[in-house]
Amino acid sequence: MTTVKVNGATRLYAIIGDPIVQVRSPELYTELFAAAGMNAVMVPMHVMPEEFDRTVPALMALENLDGLIATVPYKARVVRFATRLGNTAARIGALNALRRESDGTWTGDMFDGLGFVRAAERKGYTLRGRRAALFGAGGAGRAIGCELAAAGIESLSIVDPLHERAVALAKTLADAFPACRVAAMATLPDNADMIVNASTVGMREGDGLPADIGALTRDTLVGDVVVSENPTPIIRHAMRHDCRHITGRDMFYGQQDALMAFFTAA
Amino acid sequence: MTTVKVNGATRLYAIIGDPIVQVRSPELYTELFAAAGMNAVMVPMHVMPEEFDRTVPALMALENLDGLIATVPYKARVVRFATRLGNTAARIGALNALRRESDGTWTGDMFDGLGFVRAAERKGYTLRGRRAALFGAGGAGRAIGCELAAAGIESLSIVDPLHERAVALAKTLADAFPACRVAAMATLPDNADMIVNASTVGMREGDGLPADIGALTRDTLVGDVVVSENPTPIIRHAMRHDCRHITGRDMFYGQQDALMAFFTAA
Repeated sequence: MTTVKVNGATRLYAIIGDPIVQVRSPELYTELFAAAGMNAVMVPMHVMPEEFDRTVPALMALENLDGLIATVPYKARVVRFATRLGNTAARIGALNALRRESDGTWTGDMFDGLGFVRAAERKGYTLRGRRAALFGAGGAGRAIGCELAAAGIESLSIVDPLHERAVALAKTLADAFPACRVAAMATLPDNADMIVNASTVGMREGDGLPADIGALTRDTLVGDVVVSENPTPIIRHAMRHDCRHITGRDMFYGQQDALMAFFTAA
Repeated sequence: MTTVKVNGATRLYAIIGDPIVQVRSPELYTELFAAAGMNAVMVPMHVMPEEFDRTVPALMALENLDGLIATVPYKARVVRFATRLGNTAARIGALNALRRESDGTWTGDMFDGLGFVRAAERKGYTLRGRRAALFGAGGAGRAIGCELAAAGIESLSIVDPLHERAVALAKTLADAFPACRVAAMATLPDNADMIVNASTVGMREGDGLPADIGALTRDTLVGDVVVSENPTPIIRHAMRHDCRHITGRDMFYGQQDALMAFFTAA
């Protein structure tokens, strides 16, 4: 746990999600705020789905609340409350951060994909030329697909139990990144040398793999968005096959600089 | 400032008011929560009057928000959001604390008057038999009037620029405490040996006394509800005349035990 200070002049940031106990943003960003000399705290707020539409605007109306982080399952649903969107958020219709501008309007953008790519860079993993398979076309999946295409992967196969989400994302990315071959698939393809779980599978106790991904070769790069104390099923699978991997924690820490720059740019 | 810890499992308490930067509850109660072994934090929330009615129920719908403190100007206005009220809050139609019960309902009660009386006890000041003049019949004034009458003062004269508020409080207290002579007055009476400012006069830079209270004799007990770093105008006036006095800070700290007991009784 992070040591922070709070008084009447403290500025609030909140992470909204359901569930909420697992989130790490309160610890990390409260510490980063303190390191930046800000009197600010990031608190967890457990917003129930049926309360979401009245709660979010009420939180944004708090005069001392300067920013929000959105996590599962709200990254797409929160978009309608932004006054304006950054390029990534606008392209994929999902965001994970909102900041209050000095004029009281709200700017949203999405940093999950950037965090994933930065984590790969930090670990020295090459993304360019990869044939990637992406499981999950929700907010995080759309963000990662977008940034992987921008990073020069050769192809992207998108699988989602809600097939129309995969189709929509494929169309968006094909239009935006014509150099990348993008397709919505019913199952993960055989030739992939990169597999990313961008679904919530792995969050709950007893979860297995998001799909039957079979044996992995050592040059397969495996990624996961689930932030977990212990390795998630797909990361354990990657470790067993001696594969390079990017965890949800890597993605989380990979976006911290960009997210802090975003919050402090208001 | 108080040192606290925060993570995804942290339970939230909030103080709602307008303005908010001056409040001390975040520091005090966050420290008391930590001392009690709770993973909980009290954060300031600046709620604008025009947003109050939609913001408060939205906050109460946050699954990890367990309590609220209401301060100026919301102590009366927040009553409608309580499922049930303690005796004092029910009598005066104002509260300063709300807690979530295990069944999700909300209990409210008012501790300002108790805090004031406890502060007097701690300082060894006698209240019984006093002829008190009370300036301000808002939430804090009603609470203090109620507890002073319960503590056995001889008489209570109530002055408020909104005269009907003074009349309503006088009626409530006369009914509840027939042994105490209670009256709504246009000006502070001459024979008072206790003067309490329960208005917000003194909160703002440049404020003077809440009314022309003239010279004070040394046996006059002076009280103020305004919590301030430096002595407020009425407390400075009392100090100049060498009078015993109870400050807003005394009242604030006087209610901490009762308020913690209230919050942890859910």
